[in-house]
Amino acid sequence: MLKGIPKIIPPDLLKILMEMGHGDDLVIGDGNFPHASCAKRLVRCDGHNVPEVLDAILRLFPLDTFVEKPAGLLEVVAGDSTKPKRWDEFRTIVKRHHTDFTDFEYIERFAFYERAKSAYAVVSTGDQALYACIILKKGVLPGE
Amino acid sequence: MLKGIPKIIPPDLLKILMEMGHGDDLVIGDGNFPHASCAKRLVRCDGHNVPEVLDAILRLFPLDTFVEKPAGLLEVVAGDSTKPKRWDEFRTIVKRHHTDFTDFEYIERFAFYERAKSAYAVVSTGDQALYACIILKKGVLPGE
Amino acid sequence: MLKGIPKIIPPDLLKILMEMGHGDDLVIGDGNFPHASCAKRLVRCDGHNVPEVLDAILRLFPLDTFVEKPAGLLEVVAGDSTKPKRWDEFRTIVKRHHTDFTDFEYIERFAFYERAKSAYAVVSTGDQALYACIILKKGVLPGE
Amino acid sequence: MLKGIPKIIPPDLLKILMEMGHGDDLVIGDGNFPHASCAKRLVRCDGHNVPEVLDAILRLFPLDTFVEKPAGLLEVVAGDSTKPKRWDEFRTIVKRHHTDFTDFEYIERFAFYERAKSAYAVVSTGDQALYACIILKKGVLPGE
Amino acid sequence: MLKGIPKIIPPDLLKILMEMGHGDDLVIGDGNFPHASCAKRLVRCDGHNVPEVLDAILRLFPLDTFVEKPAGLLEVVAGDSTKPKRWDEFRTIVKRHHTDFTDFEYIERFAFYERAKSAYAVVSTGDQALYACIILKKGVLPGE
Amino acid sequence: MLKGIPKIIPPDLLKILMEMGHGDDLVIGDGNFPHASCAKRLVRCDGHNVPEVLDAILRLFPLDTFVEKPAGLLEVVAGDSTKPKRWDEFRTIVKRHHTDFTDFEYIERFAFYERAKSAYAVVSTGDQALYACIILKKGVLPGE
Amino acid sequence: MLKGIPKIIPPDLLKILMEMGHGDDLVIGDGNFPHASCAKRLVRCDGHNVPEVLDAILRLFPLDTFVEKPAGLLEVVAGDSTKPKRWDEFRTIVKRHHTDFTDFEYIERFAFYERAKSAYAVVSTGDQALYACIILKKGVLPGE
Amino acid sequence: MLKGIPKIIPPDLLKILMEMGHGDDLVIGDGNFPHASCAKRLVRCDGHNVPEVLDAILRLFPLDTFVEKPAGLLEVVAGDSTKPKRWDEFRTIVKRHHTDFTDFEYIERFAFYERAKSAYAVVSTGDQALYACIILKKGVLPGE
Amino acid sequence: MLKGIPKIIPPDLLKILMEMGHGDDLVIGDGNFPHASCAKRLVRCDGHNVPEVLDAILRLFPLDTFVEKPAGLLEVVAGDSTKPKRWDEFRTIVKRHHTDFTDFEYIERFAFYERAKSAYAVVSTGDQALYACIILKKGVLPGE
Amino acid sequence: MLKGIPKIIPPDLLKILMEMGHGDDLVIGDGNFPHASCAKRLVRCDGHNVPEVLDAILRLFPLDTFVEKPAGLLEVVAGDSTKPKRWDEFRTIVKRHHTDFTDFEYIERFAFYERAKSAYAVVSTGDQALYACIILKKGVLPGE
Repeated sequence: MLKGIPKIIPPDLLKILMEMGHGDDLVIGDGNFPHASCAKRLVRCDGHNVPEVLDAILRLFPLDTFVEKPAGLLEVVAGDSTKPKRWDEFRTIVKRHHTDFTDFEYIERFAFYERAKSAYAVVSTGDQALYACIILKKGVLPGE
Repeated sequence: MLKGIPKIIPPDLLKILMEMGHGDDLVIGDGNFPHASCAKRLVRCDGHNVPEVLDAILRLFPLDTFVEKPAGLLEVVAGDSTKPKRWDEFRTIVKRHHTDFTDFEYIERFAFYERAKSAYAVVSTGDQALYACIILKKGVLPGE
Repeated sequence: MLKGIPKIIPPDLLKILMEMGHGDDLVIGDGNFPHASCAKRLVRCDGHNVPEVLDAILRLFPLDTFVEKPAGLLEVVAGDSTKPKRWDEFRTIVKRHHTDFTDFEYIERFAFYERAKSAYAVVSTGDQALYACIILKKGVLPGE
Repeated sequence: MLKGIPKIIPPDLLKILMEMGHGDDLVIGDGNFPHASCAKRLVRCDGHNVPEVLDAILRLFPLDTFVEKPAGLLEVVAGDSTKPKRWDEFRTIVKRHHTDFTDFEYIERFAFYERAKSAYAVVSTGDQALYACIILKKGVLPGE
Repeated sequence: MLKGIPKIIPPDLLKILMEMGHGDDLVIGDGNFPHASCAKRLVRCDGHNVPEVLDAILRLFPLDTFVEKPAGLLEVVAGDSTKPKRWDEFRTIVKRHHTDFTDFEYIERFAFYERAKSAYAVVSTGDQALYACIILKKGVLPGE
Repeated sequence: MLKGIPKIIPPDLLKILMEMGHGDDLVIGDGNFPHASCAKRLVRCDGHNVPEVLDAILRLFPLDTFVEKPAGLLEVVAGDSTKPKRWDEFRTIVKRHHTDFTDFEYIERFAFYERAKSAYAVVSTGDQALYACIILKKGVLPGE
Repeated sequence: MLKGIPKIIPPDLLKILMEMGHGDDLVIGDGNFPHASCAKRLVRCDGHNVPEVLDAILRLFPLDTFVEKPAGLLEVVAGDSTKPKRWDEFRTIVKRHHTDFTDFEYIERFAFYERAKSAYAVVSTGDQALYACIILKKGVLPGE
Repeated sequence: MLKGIPKIIPPDLLKILMEMGHGDDLVIGDGNFPHASCAKRLVRCDGHNVPEVLDAILRLFPLDTFVEKPAGLLEVVAGDSTKPKRWDEFRTIVKRHHTDFTDFEYIERFAFYERAKSAYAVVSTGDQALYACIILKKGVLPGE
Repeated sequence: MLKGIPKIIPPDLLKILMEMGHGDDLVIGDGNFPHASCAKRLVRCDGHNVPEVLDAILRLFPLDTFVEKPAGLLEVVAGDSTKPKRWDEFRTIVKRHHTDFTDFEYIERFAFYERAKSAYAVVSTGDQALYACIILKKGVLPGE
Repeated sequence: MLKGIPKIIPPDLLKILMEMGHGDDLVIGDGNFPHASCAKRLVRCDGHNVPEVLDAILRLFPLDTFVEKPAGLLEVVAGDSTKPKRWDEFRTIVKRHHTDFTDFEYIERFAFYERAKSAYAVVSTGDQALYACIILKKGVLPGE
């Protein structure tokens, strides 16, 4: 534990967040996401839900302003009537850290998996809510 | 050994079953299956037959409900008169855990090998029954 | 995620719990415990407190009945007036799983570190409560 | 699988049995034995009992004739009234392969653990019978 | 050394032969074969000729009966007048273990190298006879 | 780069600082310190002086309050007339982060090396000032 | 530290510079560059700006004279009004070491990333100036 | 050092020369050759020139007689007026060991790099002579 | 295979013989020797007897002239009436390469094992002759 | 190759020289020295003699001024009449770089081996001169 670092973030994840650069993607997957088969680098956050992990990450991690939609969601599969219960929460959290946030990109399930496979890292959670996966593109920190 | 975990499951396999996510495939191969040349991750269950391993796995592992046939068999090679003696057993075991199970997908031998190569893991057994290979697609565990 | 396995337990930890045998020790450390410098094998549970991890582990893990006190605590350092706030919770949880539990062993700080160094594994948590470390000795699962 | 090799023996174990030489020890542990914390090299035979593994091994593995008692058992702990139910079976199996076998060495629990730590390898099983551990010392195969 | 296992077979090779399954290829190369640049897994038998290694392997290893020609030879390069002196010996050895053996497949030099690159393993020897390379396809061991 | 994390700290060092627990030691060595021969884990900060690294670390890292002197210096070797020019700077920096800081522990050169060998990690710098080495003992972060 | 070697160069980087040959590329990235996702070999220089690293490298490293423009810059993204403040400094430094230097190659952002992925190594810095990335092609050192 | 083995050959190189088989390529590069970015396996001979290394290798290594030109040189780049000063020496050395040698194959610079990337190994030297790179194809050693 | 190198010597062994220096020990063990449990580095020569391996090694390997007895044998165990049939052969072979050889050192079985554990390498053979183990101490090759 | 770095120094050695700190030892051994059995880190300079390697190293590497004799030689073994022919050369080279050099430390053969085992690294050469081994203790580079 360190002063000022959210306790929910494992040391490996903090290292990964630091190593990432402009344009690199980070996926936070729900408990049913196929993390291990998609991830180049995998950090586990078992027993946590996505919103608390997302909020901790965005305290440290700038979103990309070079693209229109730096955050994406895994859209509902055709024919499935599920109403994703995390999406409003996600919107609130992203807005808290990026006040000019407008909307998410919505990504088809298997296209999302492909994005995850080329992402810099995947964070797994134990969130049992369905469709609670999000992908974030890292932005730049300009000089003071 | 742990309370409530089938003793036939090696620690490595339990870990793998936990790591798998929605849509990941698991192969259980008979004793003649080319496990080691197909498997990304291999767990050996030497000296056991497939049915007892399959049954133990399905006590823990949900099948995918997003596809019509989440379990597949290696179909008999053209010109071979073998009657696969494990298939009825397999049907009974899958039905016990998934009462709405209808039928298996049947997969040509070399197509099955290709599926195995992209599967998350392969479990080898010592089953000498012919055509006693099965592939399972993992489903989701929705929140309570 | 698997049916019937507590979601807070990472795959690596479940594997480790299975691999352990009679007499092997497991440490669950609080957020200030020097996990990484003590552990032969380390599993991180960042962002969780010890009681929820302890309870999940004891659903699967039998305590040793060959010794009088199969669970130990890191005792308060001489001169420190802290009242460890987790100890009553620990007692309640252990009793829930082992109704004949009597009392903990109390272990001096540096002796506890030495025990941790020879333990089979250490589980780290983010628990900020002080003196919230516990060591568990695994027992046998006799045949049915 | 190969012609004439017992199917219960994993490839890794066969390799290990071949690599061992005169005087090297092999432990076969029951399901409660602390395999992983004792073993220099560990081969798992989950879901099997010790007798079937022991019998398969002795079809290939010569016992040492340079010592009086090339096979040893983990003796009952003082104060424990368990009657080890595997010991007669073990005697029958060893005699089948070594007709001049007389008796086992009996080794105190923690001394047995120390022997296991310096043994060439440990084979783990899922045998729930208590005190079902055996240690074998390899002998020579003289020229024809 | 173990009872009944040919002494010429290294432990690693025995393990590999066991791991192979239906349809997997094994190459035994002569001393000039480019083993190390072709092999996924390489086992060296320096100082031996191919026939003695082949004979030892076929005592354990079943040939594939699903294909017409489960054994192949590296055919003489166009324009080379060499008479391969091992081929008759090879035929005799294969026939000894598979009485219904008819003929070898003959494979062009660079096509043979490609087969070797996708084979499960390559066994190198020190055989100075030219064109003394053979490829074997593993068959099934049906239940008793 | 992340929001609020000093840019001079490499990702590996941040990970290490997080992993450390109560009582673990961290060494920051000057450019002549034998880092690589002492360090269990080494992080390089070539081209920097110690004060700027020390200051960045103490923004995140709590010093131990269970010991009287949680920070130590490598004392001047007998017979050497060097006046260590960094020590006043070190004192100022430590005081800035720990207002109740009193004095350093002074450690003989080879005793310092031994401490470094059992420290959790060593940070190397390119500081050419002599006697510019410091050892820090990590403290606890109590719950809010 | 060694006599005559710039102190800002880590040992790993010096080794890499020596290993490189004619035509190999080296990237020095600013603090926002996606180093870790592009680099075959990565050396970190956290806390430094690019000019001081570039100057130290060019004291040792010859630029390629077989191509017209052996040094390239990541050009400003279409629509971005940033004036890269490091470019003049870069020009001065390169000219100091290669008096016949004429101009940089300008490379589109994603093309630059592709060049970086096939470069021999990437050096990361903490430079917060935007567009402060440079790629260098190594030349030959002819005999005296 | 061993009796009769040229002292200039490192143990790793001798091992590699032995492992190579018919048709495998070996590159010896001059000091400016991009060894590390081309080599599957790299052996360094820093501080030596190519002729002395070539001569030592050819004392042990047979050239391929199945191809017309088993030795190749990196030809002078178009527009470069360099006269490669090592080529006559190379010719003399090869002739000394293969009296029927006729001429070298001349290979364009980037084609040479591609050959080097698929070669079995690359030997680096410190030769500052330009265009002092050679590629050798291994031949067979027929039985006595 | 290389010109002038005995074909029975594997590439790894040749590399090891070259790496050894003055005073380093090499063990050649018979088929019953506990190679794998004694060896720091192990090279297998399955299927060969010790004399042919010893002879090949001594063609390359100088014995130590700084000690009286640079070659040692594992002496017969007290109470065993075996007449070691290889010893005369060993004497003849050593004499062939070192004409001033006088006699072997005789080493008690467990002392021999200890020597083997600190030897640079162990060569295993498949020799079924009993007491066919030998240890060789490497000498110097003075300049011409 | 880099500007100003002696070509005889391999990249690994340069990295090692940089990593070493005050008081770390470096051994340069002759061709008969048991390098591989003594070295924690080994760099090979096959085919070179010690003086040329020593001279290149001392161009970069400061000797320790905290001890009286920062360079040591392996003294002649009792009873050996060899006159070490390299020692005068060594003296000249050391004096060239350290004009205040007085004399070497002379170290008994097996004590020298022990020093080598705890040295930071060993450089092997192919020098056939006897007693041509030297050990160097690294000094400090004070700030300008």
